[in-house]
Amino acid sequence: MNGAQALIRTLVDAGVDTCFMNPGTSEMHFVAALDEVPEMHSVLALFEGVATGAADGYARMAGRPAAVLLHLGPGLGNGLANLHNARRGYTPIVNIVGDHATYHAQYDAPLQSDIESIARGVSGWIRSADSTATLQSDAADAVAASFGPPGQVATLILPADVCWLESDGPVPAATVTTPRPVEQSTLEQILQVLKSGEPTAILLAGSSLMESGLVAASRISETAQVRLIAETFPPRLQRGAGLPALDRLMYLAEFAQMQLDGLKHLILVGAASPVSFFAYPEIASDLVPQGCTVHVLAQPGDDSTGALETLADMLGAPADAAVLAAPSRPEKPSGVLNAESFAAAIGALLPEDVIVVDEGNTAGLFVAGFTAGAPRHDWLCLPGGAIGFGMPVATGAAVASPGRKVLNLEADGSAMYTFQALWTQVREGLDVITVILNNQSYAILNLELSRVGAHPGPKALEMLDLTNPRLDFVALAQGLGVAATRATTAEEFHDQLEVAFATPGPHLIEAILPPTL
Amino acid sequence: MNGAQALIRTLVDAGVDTCFMNPGTSEMHFVAALDEVPEMHSVLALFEGVATGAADGYARMAGRPAAVLLHLGPGLGNGLANLHNARRGYTPIVNIVGDHATYHAQYDAPLQSDIESIARGVSGWIRSADSTATLQSDAADAVAASFGPPGQVATLILPADVCWLESDGPVPAATVTTPRPVEQSTLEQILQVLKSGEPTAILLAGSSLMESGLVAASRISETAQVRLIAETFPPRLQRGAGLPALDRLMYLAEFAQMQLDGLKHLILVGAASPVSFFAYPEIASDLVPQGCTVHVLAQPGDDSTGALETLADMLGAPADAAVLAAPSRPEKPSGVLNAESFAAAIGALLPEDVIVVDEGNTAGLFVAGFTAGAPRHDWLCLPGGAIGFGMPVATGAAVASPGRKVLNLEADGSAMYTFQALWTQVREGLDVITVILNNQSYAILNLELSRVGAHPGPKALEMLDLTNPRLDFVALAQGLGVAATRATTAEEFHDQLEVAFATPGPHLIEAILPPTL
Repeated sequence: MNGAQALIRTLVDAGVDTCFMNPGTSEMHFVAALDEVPEMHSVLALFEGVATGAADGYARMAGRPAAVLLHLGPGLGNGLANLHNARRGYTPIVNIVGDHATYHAQYDAPLQSDIESIARGVSGWIRSADSTATLQSDAADAVAASFGPPGQVATLILPADVCWLESDGPVPAATVTTPRPVEQSTLEQILQVLKSGEPTAILLAGSSLMESGLVAASRISETAQVRLIAETFPPRLQRGAGLPALDRLMYLAEFAQMQLDGLKHLILVGAASPVSFFAYPEIASDLVPQGCTVHVLAQPGDDSTGALETLADMLGAPADAAVLAAPSRPEKPSGVLNAESFAAAIGALLPEDVIVVDEGNTAGLFVAGFTAGAPRHDWLCLPGGAIGFGMPVATGAAVASPGRKVLNLEADGSAMYTFQALWTQVREGLDVITVILNNQSYAILNLELSRVGAHPGPKALEMLDLTNPRLDFVALAQGLGVAATRATTAEEFHDQLEVAFATPGPHLIEAILPPTL
Repeated sequence: MNGAQALIRTLVDAGVDTCFMNPGTSEMHFVAALDEVPEMHSVLALFEGVATGAADGYARMAGRPAAVLLHLGPGLGNGLANLHNARRGYTPIVNIVGDHATYHAQYDAPLQSDIESIARGVSGWIRSADSTATLQSDAADAVAASFGPPGQVATLILPADVCWLESDGPVPAATVTTPRPVEQSTLEQILQVLKSGEPTAILLAGSSLMESGLVAASRISETAQVRLIAETFPPRLQRGAGLPALDRLMYLAEFAQMQLDGLKHLILVGAASPVSFFAYPEIASDLVPQGCTVHVLAQPGDDSTGALETLADMLGAPADAAVLAAPSRPEKPSGVLNAESFAAAIGALLPEDVIVVDEGNTAGLFVAGFTAGAPRHDWLCLPGGAIGFGMPVATGAAVASPGRKVLNLEADGSAMYTFQALWTQVREGLDVITVILNNQSYAILNLELSRVGAHPGPKALEMLDLTNPRLDFVALAQGLGVAATRATTAEEFHDQLEVAFATPGPHLIEAILPPTL
């Protein structure tokens, strides 16, 4: 048994049985070892950003990490944006970066680079496996490290010779640290805030946005008469009929300020104190209103759901106090296809248990509202802001969730970063419906351009325009083997989406939307 | 005049008048400032790897840097692989990475990251512009630094507020350091080696592979009876009828060892001492034969052409001693389309002055041989080994070379990393012919898998297979607005290529090749 075989066996024994990969020469022993460990599901991507984003989507749904296999520094670079997103969403990932053989580094061959320097910013844990004897414990440590808490990217740099040399065999899984319980004194302090009667909101993030956390938060909200707000871009939010509903903090700083206006207390549950996504001239970066005190109930990595449940009980909130969203659906839309009728069609059709991956950006503005009463579903957003996450995350979420449909709402500009994901969806036979919101522009930048106080001329506007040439997403999808259609009216979109929900395997619908909102 | 306007004016005044970009919110003032400086040509890319690769191709042909504009750490990550390639090819690039406003960093907003850590490995020079007052001199310094010598990536981190604040205006260009002349004592040492009569080869790299360097090297070769070898993957090699011909050092270590076998002296001209691209069990990483002494005539950044010319004169080589390749072309091929007939068609048709961008990998094996006697042309390779360089480099080379045709030989696997480049080719009306060598696999990895001594089973082989599903490059090209055809016989390929050479604007030809060589 060589190092690679023992490594893969160690990963599988620790519960990591899926590896998204785009390997090269230095990873060939890892690839060859796949046949020796049949439990490892290896998923090929045409581009590294697909592999890292898929690992993010996988872990968000599975609650445990996938592995990624990348080829040296440049492969890591290609996958870096989606590792950044995973870091911001506290997603556990075992990020394996192949490297030259240990003795080869000194020759500065063309692909030699400083992998650690590239990996540092996205990784909560980094180790270079420098011998076959310790490789397996390195791997077990990487898996445990990826869980955090909070979850993080654990990067294991894997020299080629460490894979090909003879190994003593796998090691058992390392102990995983569970989320930290919140201290009683903190709970009591927050209880006093809740009882103050002053205007208060609870800002929920991370795992508190799953059903148990939401129910406990809603009990608190109803009993103490405080508001609930979700983080702007949650990695995973459970929502729909039968679950407590809550608004998300708005992306645009001006609107977020209005949401928070008048608060005296803001209680953070796994969330960061709200700040503007970008800086704008004359707008404050810190969005907490003057005179509002920020309290921390739970930090990322704390048992936020447990804290919310205890707090609800301490408040004396009845077990059935949570307010649950009633079932409701918009009518089937007709006529012009625009952001509103687009959203209505989704609300009219969304089946139970769909995983929605939301990179709809500006054109997706109305979708959350129109699906608030749809059957329960998961909603996966972009916590790190690096676009090109949607199609890969949809791919990984589908791999983790056999039997569930994934609906990927994807803006045209964002789609073009990691479009290669469609090919993996075909290869793996995944039930992913990709809807391209094609408004023929980087519409969000048109908005941002005016918000930052810039005065664009024709040359600037050309840099935000996607009509020269027009992207034909139907042809692009077909090029990657995905069945695709184009919708130009509300009825067409509705009917195509209905067919896609009823048909297995990947589909793409290009929704032609007006260039502006 | 704000900082961004003064920055762009400073770049243009320093000779940097082309900027490849994929901007985001933090770059909006830069984008808005484009209208104030009409001399700056701004070229939009759908993905950052296209922008950085295009800047590489541009500078290889223009001999001066382009600027790149990227969005924060994730945008830099997306562009990193092609910056790695530029670094290995000593290409000057002014790499501008937008960042949050200086005062916004403390809030750790979602897109905050350590840009410098990501940039370090690829950059010969890094600076963060921390005030509008010094931004223009930072920019002038970046341009000068990019020239080296040798050329390098100069990374300027550009906070948003530094762009939007009021500026004192542009500054003049900073002084560029010219290549260092080689010392007389070195020339005399090398002269003695050349006169030794012992088996000697000269390994040429970088700028010595342009006509003047090649002619001088050929004079030396003919007079001293020594061999000439080019580096394995030159950033730019001038070749064809009327120019000295030379073999390139082989990629596969076993073949390179055979090429170098028996040498007593190896003279490096801007080249690194030859090492194996990857490490393989039981194969030496250092390819210099035992008993062979390595001599350095010129390091990267030295005036290697001047040194070769002086050395030729010192040797008493006649001015006309260089041996020039005679014109010759293969016959128009017929029948089966395979690596050989594919190459013959290119050799039969290649017009004068074409820029060939070669990412053909395994399937392109015969092309160099079949074009050795074609009319003179430039040949651009992949010095850094990070695949996905070809389509972006072809794009940038075309921007730099109006009136010249670019022929991009692109392997199917490599094409899928930065396919988005085609869209920029349409937008800019570039004369690029992309030929996809579609052998439906990562063929080079099939080869490498056996070379590293791995014994693959079906699962491993599936990770190298591109037939599930098959990629339809004609549809993909059409999706990005490029006219495309498919060739399945030698005649079809020949005739489609003939039409493409005769027609302006971008074209794509998908050449269906057998799965193995």
